Amino acid sequence: MNLARLQTPCLVLDRDILQRNIERMRERMQALGVSLRPHIKTAKSVEVARLIMHGGSGPITVSTLREAEYFFAGGFADILYAVSVVPGKLDRVRGLMNAGCDLKLILDDAATAAEVANAGRETGATFKVLIEIDCDGHRAGLRPDDPAVTALAKSIHESDGIEFLGLMTHAGDSYSSRTTDEIRGHAAREVLSIVSAAGRIAAQGIPVPIRSVGSTPTASFVDDLSGISEVRAGVYVFQDLVMVGLGVCKLNDIAMSVLTTVVSHKRDHQRLIVDAGGIALSKDRGTAEQALDCGYGLVCDAASGIVIDGLIVSDVNQEHGLIGSSERELDFSRFPIGSQLRILPNHACMTAAAHECYQVVAGDGRVQDVWQRCQGW
Amino acid sequence: MNLARLQTPCLVLDRDILQRNIERMRERMQALGVSLRPHIKTAKSVEVARLIMHGGSGPITVSTLREAEYFFAGGFADILYAVSVVPGKLDRVRGLMNAGCDLKLILDDAATAAEVANAGRETGATFKVLIEIDCDGHRAGLRPDDPAVTALAKSIHESDGIEFLGLMTHAGDSYSSRTTDEIRGHAAREVLSIVSAAGRIAAQGIPVPIRSVGSTPTASFVDDLSGISEVRAGVYVFQDLVMVGLGVCKLNDIAMSVLTTVVSHKRDHQRLIVDAGGIALSKDRGTAEQALDCGYGLVCDAASGIVIDGLIVSDVNQEHGLIGSSERELDFSRFPIGSQLRILPNHACMTAAAHECYQVVAGDGRVQDVWQRCQGW
Repeated sequence: MNLARLQTPCLVLDRDILQRNIERMRERMQALGVSLRPHIKTAKSVEVARLIMHGGSGPITVSTLREAEYFFAGGFADILYAVSVVPGKLDRVRGLMNAGCDLKLILDDAATAAEVANAGRETGATFKVLIEIDCDGHRAGLRPDDPAVTALAKSIHESDGIEFLGLMTHAGDSYSSRTTDEIRGHAAREVLSIVSAAGRIAAQGIPVPIRSVGSTPTASFVDDLSGISEVRAGVYVFQDLVMVGLGVCKLNDIAMSVLTTVVSHKRDHQRLIVDAGGIALSKDRGTAEQALDCGYGLVCDAASGIVIDGLIVSDVNQEHGLIGSSERELDFSRFPIGSQLRILPNHACMTAAAHECYQVVAGDGRVQDVWQRCQGW
Repeated sequence: MNLARLQTPCLVLDRDILQRNIERMRERMQALGVSLRPHIKTAKSVEVARLIMHGGSGPITVSTLREAEYFFAGGFADILYAVSVVPGKLDRVRGLMNAGCDLKLILDDAATAAEVANAGRETGATFKVLIEIDCDGHRAGLRPDDPAVTALAKSIHESDGIEFLGLMTHAGDSYSSRTTDEIRGHAAREVLSIVSAAGRIAAQGIPVPIRSVGSTPTASFVDDLSGISEVRAGVYVFQDLVMVGLGVCKLNDIAMSVLTTVVSHKRDHQRLIVDAGGIALSKDRGTAEQALDCGYGLVCDAASGIVIDGLIVSDVNQEHGLIGSSERELDFSRFPIGSQLRILPNHACMTAAAHECYQVVAGDGRVQDVWQRCQGW
């Protein structure tokens, strides 16, 4: 089927670019000698995960229990749920474990660990946990040099109902880097924070089998992963405008775009209006602080997927996107009402989130497949 | 069921507040002597639409054909699809019409009108259309004084396969008003733009039965709707922080919130981390330009729904919300890990969009019902 036959807005996924992005990261991790535990919160698709995994059953990373349930049902067994667990979610966790899922949890708090251990003892389960380390002040986790890290590891190690598996961190601040050297600095901090904290724990005679770091920027530039057992990265499979702004990839590495239709010519304002708005594109403004602010997305020719110079999605309402031009006179005849465009996303994870499926296209631009996505929590 | 039993994040909808918001707008429109055509893109729920409609089958407004299909299946027949139609969507439009749906379309372009008329003649259908008028330069539509308006109405009126039903406009710029007087100005412009353009069309002997205006801000403050046949408004059923900032409502008029769980205490940064992030809350920053910037939402006690002074969602990642405090020392003991909070949304339409259903609570705070939502396109 041709793109022209699709109802818009919808997601278009270029299989060749996807495959290239997957291979590039796989080769990088193989060269660095570590396991890759892809964060599938970007794609939320078993088909994409299978391409990454070459038919393996993991390891993968998820951001919600709904994803864990969906991917376990899709054949993935080794799953890290990378948002701090709370006692109210342990029933669902146990449901997955009882069904055979090797689900791993994270936390950063002694009282929570005690509650998890209690719940484990009460139900005859042993919950596997990693301690979250905060390498850059970005979000959650304990600072690597906080004595609470070793104390927590020791307490988990010595408790029934809970098992200490290791440490993980995420250099979220790498997304606001200005140079690739800055990204390398974040990567080094990720590694150092885990290796140093793991060393102190190991010195207590407690094994730290999983030493997990990662983000797409740091995974793309790190050159020494000594002491690290696995890398997590997500958005690299699709890439996006934020990653282009960071120098992680080029525009033609972006595998996912939103197909949209021109619905109005606003001649007095020199702008096009399309049917991809704030829901279809997301309101993520991740490029706002970068050198090139891409508004709500860059505009591409629908058939070729090549960026059209000077066009940008300058504003969005719920179901309207407003496309402005840097030219004084927009040539409306190039973009008739009813014609299609593609929009490259600022942040692929957020843009994909509103959509139920991907229209998968091959090099010839024809739709070869429809891949469903997991949504909700 | 108690809220404490719910898996988070999820939407909580207070049925009493919802009912009060619905009644207030209904009474307002009755007093002004016009029909209300609610925009159900906010709620996307047949249950909410039934409460608004008192069991009637319309009129309603939708923003996608998926909504039109969903609400028609739910018993609503008189539907205005309020995004410019394009020829590629007419097959779905005709499917609805053939099934008995009284679907009305909008457009603002002569060439598109000719294509729609052609499609009508070819398939034996008569597509009903309104012309979109641009009253404030906000989005799409023809300026009310543009001679193209009357010419387009005349051409549609004289064509087979298409029927001219009237004019519609939306004062989208009312959302950036600083005072209620400004909103009244937008309301007056909405009315004037439709009445003036309709007058010129009627002077050509062409009937203009539908003269449609509206937005929640203008509908809340307009005091003269002479010459207008119907008002469209959507977010008033739920209200949100943008509407509070505009003076349209008070905080305790907000019917919808996101229930979330505290997952981490980030003591070194004096912030809480919750499991409602950019997907569950949306990345809408509609209050950013208002007098009170609410970040990504205000934080409420989960049980009472009352705002907790000084707490704000200051940042979001995909599945993490970061809550900061205006106090120097955040009292973490008030918000244990595992405890719940509710977040009031900046923009209810965008926040609701990511969720599959509403947990409907009554005055006693117990969940009485689960109402499904329509998603996608």
